Amino acid sequence: MDHNERLTRQMDFCREVDKEKEVFRQSFLCSGNRRENDAEHAWHMALMALVLEEYSNEEVDLLKVISMLLIHDIVEIDAGDTYAYDLEAIKSQEEREKKAADRIFGILPDDQRDRMMDLFHEFEAAETPEAKFAKALDNVQPVMLNDASGGKDWREKGISLSRAIERQSRTAKGSKILWEEVSKPMLQKNIDLGNIIGDASLDEI
Amino acid sequence: MDHNERLTRQMDFCREVDKEKEVFRQSFLCSGNRRENDAEHAWHMALMALVLEEYSNEEVDLLKVISMLLIHDIVEIDAGDTYAYDLEAIKSQEEREKKAADRIFGILPDDQRDRMMDLFHEFEAAETPEAKFAKALDNVQPVMLNDASGGKDWREKGISLSRAIERQSRTAKGSKILWEEVSKPMLQKNIDLGNIIGDASLDEI
Repeated sequence: MDHNERLTRQMDFCREVDKEKEVFRQSFLCSGNRRENDAEHAWHMALMALVLEEYSNEEVDLLKVISMLLIHDIVEIDAGDTYAYDLEAIKSQEEREKKAADRIFGILPDDQRDRMMDLFHEFEAAETPEAKFAKALDNVQPVMLNDASGGKDWREKGISLSRAIERQSRTAKGSKILWEEVSKPMLQKNIDLGNIIGDASLDEI
Repeated sequence: MDHNERLTRQMDFCREVDKEKEVFRQSFLCSGNRRENDAEHAWHMALMALVLEEYSNEEVDLLKVISMLLIHDIVEIDAGDTYAYDLEAIKSQEEREKKAADRIFGILPDDQRDRMMDLFHEFEAAETPEAKFAKALDNVQPVMLNDASGGKDWREKGISLSRAIERQSRTAKGSKILWEEVSKPMLQKNIDLGNIIGDASLDEI
């Protein structure tokens, strides 16, 4: 691939990812004014990684954590946002996201495509210290937004703790402190307020 | 400062910056559907730094470039977006942004406040390799969006090249290649299309 084609493919990718700004999530902004989109979510988490790195259970390569967070939702340009509590959509999620990753990262020159694919799969597998910490932030951030907006999304959807518990249990794998001192008390507060249906115990996690 | 107070201040900061999602810029998304906000803009540029690093004139610490890009518009939560071509607003910009940096970064524990302030001032001064490359991306990204949306913002505002030329001249200081092969041809194309008033020559840069 010559220099011109390389740069053209890189700029095509930079334009393509702009669409992530039009993929909306379920969480409301802290203000409650509207729902958050994927690009904002990715920025917020990358910034949170910068501020909260010291709470990772294991030492991490911060550039790798931030790179994962910047790209982890790009597949949703094609695959859409799969709501964490929509069990039907979760079944087809892997196949839809694989196809999307092939198309969108495939716009890049091969070496960068491979690097992005590796980062994306590492994040999804949630096994390395970087991926575990990134996944923890991916849970803490929406809990923080939901709490700040008065539990608006939880109430609208009638979310119960028993449905949230499996996902939330992954937070402690990346950061025991963010689980024990941020997410857990926020979830408990929203159970007490009736924003989350308290049909399970947080101590099971 | 004890552990609890430190974590409380960090989480307060993480909530405070959520407001950046409600500060709107002048550029339209590539689709032209609506204007872009600061959080999306910061995410887009951080991702572009990841993809386009090889075009920096000088070798850079990529984590530092990305960190600068993630935080560079936080001051606009208080100071608002200052349009690059609004000469009146630019006069008071420095004072407004200084006050905003003191308040918002001041929410963080002192060590992190100082680190963020240093990054912000380094970006603004545009003297280190990292800041020059970050500034180049901060110019290339809106040119790319404006070009993709058919020059919508340029046409609405009646932008002339003579007004854009000083700002655009900074791109080459961070990346000669992105200036020569991306921004310059995009600007020329939009002059030819009549989207930008061609009252100067791009060869003056």
